[in-house]
This record gives sequence, C-alpha cells and structure tokens, in this order.
Amino acid sequence: MPTATTPPFLLFLGDSTTRGEIKTALGLARWRPEACIGEWRLGGPDPEVTTGLPWLDPTAARAAGAKTLVVGCVNAGGFFGPRWIEALQEALVADLDVASGMHQRLGDVPELVARARERGRSLVDVRVPPKGLPVGSGAPRAGHRVLTVGTDCSSGKMWTALTITDELRARGHRATFRATGQTGIFIAGGGMPVDAVVSDFVSGSVETLCPAADPDHWDVIEGQGSLFHPGFAAVSLGLLHGAQAEALVLCHVVGRDSLRGVPYPYPTPDLSECIALHETTARLTCPAARVVAVSLVTSAIADEDAARAICEDTSERLGLPTTDPQRFGVAPIVDALLASERAPR
Amino acid sequence: MPTATTPPFLLFLGDSTTRGEIKTALGLARWRPEACIGEWRLGGPDPEVTTGLPWLDPTAARAAGAKTLVVGCVNAGGFFGPRWIEALQEALVADLDVASGMHQRLGDVPELVARARERGRSLVDVRVPPKGLPVGSGAPRAGHRVLTVGTDCSSGKMWTALTITDELRARGHRATFRATGQTGIFIAGGGMPVDAVVSDFVSGSVETLCPAADPDHWDVIEGQGSLFHPGFAAVSLGLLHGAQAEALVLCHVVGRDSLRGVPYPYPTPDLSECIALHETTARLTCPAARVVAVSLVTSAIADEDAARAICEDTSERLGLPTTDPQRFGVAPIVDALLASERAPR
Repeated sequence: MPTATTPPFLLFLGDSTTRGEIKTALGLARWRPEACIGEWRLGGPDPEVTTGLPWLDPTAARAAGAKTLVVGCVNAGGFFGPRWIEALQEALVADLDVASGMHQRLGDVPELVARARERGRSLVDVRVPPKGLPVGSGAPRAGHRVLTVGTDCSSGKMWTALTITDELRARGHRATFRATGQTGIFIAGGGMPVDAVVSDFVSGSVETLCPAADPDHWDVIEGQGSLFHPGFAAVSLGLLHGAQAEALVLCHVVGRDSLRGVPYPYPTPDLSECIALHETTARLTCPAARVVAVSLVTSAIADEDAARAICEDTSERLGLPTTDPQRFGVAPIVDALLASERAPR
Repeated sequence: MPTATTPPFLLFLGDSTTRGEIKTALGLARWRPEACIGEWRLGGPDPEVTTGLPWLDPTAARAAGAKTLVVGCVNAGGFFGPRWIEALQEALVADLDVASGMHQRLGDVPELVARARERGRSLVDVRVPPKGLPVGSGAPRAGHRVLTVGTDCSSGKMWTALTITDELRARGHRATFRATGQTGIFIAGGGMPVDAVVSDFVSGSVETLCPAADPDHWDVIEGQGSLFHPGFAAVSLGLLHGAQAEALVLCHVVGRDSLRGVPYPYPTPDLSECIALHETTARLTCPAARVVAVSLVTSAIADEDAARAICEDTSERLGLPTTDPQRFGVAPIVDALLASERAPR
C-alpha cells in the first residue's frame, strides 16, 4: 500500500478552471473534512472552483497546523506543469510534505526531490502500487463483496461506494470501503491504485486489496472506468474479476450521452446492455454475481421531482432499485444488497 | 520499443524440465533459425527438453560467433533463481550480451549489472514498455487488422499469427506480424510487451503498436491470455480494444479442459461462448469485428485423420473455417480473412 499521507491537509487546486478538475479536493473535503484545513489555488480564490474551505497559502496553512499539501486536482495530460512545480516547491519551503495521486510521480521531478531533501520533507506518491503483486488466482474467498461499476468514468462510483459503506455501518453491519483510485485512497488512507498496476497483475492486485474476510463482513469496492470505455476497459475488467463481488451497483450520469476522456465520440452504453455485459463477465470468478441496483447522478436535472421520476422510470424499466445517493440517499441500494445476502444462490 | 537484441543468439534453457518451459527458445529456433546458433542448459543436454540446436556453453558459443545469450525459458514465479544468475554472469564473462523477456528485469539484479559493467556488455530487457504511452483513444484507423485470441493462455496465438503473416505474404499481400509477448518480440525484433504495460495504457499501447496503415496492408497481431482467464483477462480486453481488428481468429488447444496457470480449477470456455464474448466486446472499437476462423492445436491427438475430423466437426458446428496451422497449414484461415476483406460491411 502507498505510504501514508499525514493530515491535516492543505488542498492544492492548481490552475483548475472547472469543478471537474478538482474532483480529488472535493472528495477529500466532503469525505474527510476533519483532515482538511484549507485550499490553495494558483491565481487566488475562485468563487466557483472551490471546496468551500478557507483559502490559505502554504505558509499560512503551516501556521494553522497543516502537515501535507495534497494535489487535489488533475490537468490535461496528467503531468505537472512548470507553474505547479514552482507551487509545490513553495509548499516544501513552507515545511509541508507534498502528496499526489497523479500518474507522473513527484519522486521523478528532480527539482522537487532536491527541494524535499533540502527541507527534510517527504514526497508521497499514492498512485504507486506495492511491489510483488500476484497474478489473480480466481480462487473463491469468504466475505460479502459489492463493487460499483459504471457506464463511464466519473459516474459516481466512489461516492456510491462511500455512501453504501456508511449506510451499512449505520445499520449495524461491518463494512470496509476499499479504495482503487487516487481520491478514494486519500480518503481511506490506503487502497490499491489499480489503474497504475501492470496489466498482468490487475485482478491479482484487487484480490490483495479485498482478501478473504468474515462471512458477514462487507467489502465495498470502488470501481474504475467502464467496460465500455475504449481507453480504460482493461482496468475495469481486471477489477471486476479480482473483486469477485456477488453484488454490483451500476452507476450512471443522467444526461451524459458520450464518454469522457475520449477524443473520438463514443456513446454512453445503454444501461441494459451494460448490466448484461457486467453480469456475463463477472460470473467468470463469481458465479452468483448480479447487478442489484442502479445509482444515478441526477445533478443535471434541476427539478427534484423530475429527478425522482427519472429514478422511478429507470427502476421500473430495469427491474432494479434506483436512486441518486447524493440527492435521495442510498437506502434502496443497501436494501437490495442485504436482500441479495439473504437470497439463496 | 525495447532495445534491439543482437544476433546470433545462444538460447538459455535454465533448469527447465519440460518443453512448455522453453517456449521462447522453441519459438526462436522455429521462427528465426538463422539467428540461433546453439542452446545451453544447466545440468547439460536433455534429449526431450531441447530445441534441437547444438549444445554450446557460453565460451564455445562466443567462439562460434554468438553475440547474445537469450533467456529462452520461464520458471515458476518468473524470477531469476541463484543458479540462473550465476549462469547469466558466466555468459557476460564469456563476452555475450544477455537478453530476457521475463517480468523480473536483468537491470534490477545488482550482480548482473555489476558484471555487465565490468565486461562492457549489455543487459537487454525486452519486456520493458516504452515511456509516454497514450491512453487508448478508440478512434478508427485505416488498414486491415487481424488479432489472434484464445480460450486460454498458450493456445497457439503467436504461432497462428506468424503462419498467417507468412501465408498472406506468400499470396502477395503486404502483412506485418505485430508481437505482444516476449517470444514474439524476440522473433520480430520489436513489439509491445502488453502484459507489462500499466493497465491504464494497455489499449493505447496496442494502438501505438499497430497504427494506421495503408488500406490494403494487414497487421497480424499476436493475442495474449484469454477473456476467460481470471488472471489475464484485463490484458486480453485491452489488447482487443486497442487492436481494433476487423477479423479475429480463435485459438484453442484440443483436449485442454481447464485453464493454465490458475491454482483453482477453471474450465476452458466453450468455443461458441468465447466467440460471442469476443465479438460483443471487440465491436466497441471496431463495429465490423467478427471471428472469421478457428485455429486448433491438435497435438494431443496422435492420429492425423482423427485430428482432421476434429477440425471438420468444429468447422461444421461453429460455421467457421477451422484448421491446425502447424499440422494442416493455415490456408483456410487466410481464405476467410481475404473473404472478409472483400465482404461489404
């Protein structure tokens, strides 16, 4: 597992101009608020592109108790630009550690390595998989597992998994959130950066992430990408096979007609088609696997009644409980999970 | 692409005890005979575990003109044992370069690095992907492409791709073999070690391997693993999406009932089911994709007529041309390819 990142955090927003770019910062501010004491952005505060946390520069954040600056944003290409490298050096000079979950590693940037050494600070790359991962064995293992899957990237898989985990615990069940992406790893304080694992070991890395557990324990595994994404489906399939999840929750953004992060237009897959392919492929390693519920992101629909109607229509059409966890809570999904747990296989 | 490996080669067979372990050596001896001048095995020659090449130790091989010792074998775990490391040092001392396609890198073994530096020799790791690979875009591209896929690992995918390439050329077509595994890369002198690529970039790496080409050119792409393998399906799906192959050839070993390299018993998938899943998933990035032929390995069937009958039965049952390329040639597969090329889409 990646090296631990020490809170409290100052969230770095880079030169982001949209909320989509600061997904990691927003996730940390929402799911680990006690660990986040401020945000910092090149060019000063922006009333739209913000987590709502106080604006602090590294020196002020350090004075307020911050231990680590967390790169809470992405940029096109996934590389640190020159302005970012200057900003991260400024954080090191202010005696903050620096943590990042981008593909490019802090430890590969000579200026940052030199500055961290000079200041006695740590550079923490959380998207570095552990060494010695096994090839997936596909051997059955004990414990309940649920995996969030999606029609696309950025379709609410992490959010849904976190809300399911909270709701299971609130109902007295033992449940563990299993992070597979950078934001989830920062939130959970550990996990497996599956998209950075060498392809031969993807399913094995997920078997390592969520090993055999007590028969009544739930691992709630964060999905990545989509089986229908021309760039990322390999990650999604390895995750699906390694998870051996008896229950899948399909996540989808209402109103998104084409996939994210693809230069050529790819339509978002039909939900029924998506359910069918997930069940077919998941059953290789977990014959009981099925999609038990649908999780929608309805934020594009301003009217709450209209959003609720979309959930109801989807539920009726697919014969599966459907909700928007952020808007209407996750209870129907957890009801479905617990019903599937009791159902004979 | 990996650094070039300089022929002629001495093939290192390690302490292998089965022909399966020396697959890489056998492939090189068969497909690049002019580059191979001998073989060397710990414990001396073995009448069963041999490529048929003369037995030479490193000093004798060097005297005979060898430039590089190629690790032509695998061992359980994919790591160099202590005896191998001694043997590879002996090759360096005899003034041979050393090349390997194993997951463990020669360049990560301090004794080998030190010895190579001392002797002024090169260590060549062909399973190291190039830096800067893109995420797969899924954008359509020109040129004909055929990909060999399989019910399992080690089911004849490389062999089938190489025979198809030769047959296409023999019929006057322009065709390029595109290697994706260590043996294929040694044979072709280049390629993409897809199973060593970070999972986010698998399909992109294959787009890089077989880029847009002239409309009448055939790229014949070596498949890896199987969509039905609990350890390796992620590699196979990324390869399938990146290849954007209009034609797929399904490879299968007659008589193999359970998958290779899995500690828990996994049945070999049914051929029809395998065809259906490949066509469903391949059509994401190539809507015209279909399985056009079946390639069987019938070596377990001693009687040639019985083997031929199995090909005929399979062909009739699936409605697809079926042959064992090694035993009966690859003509029916290439007929099917060229017919698919002419067929309207």
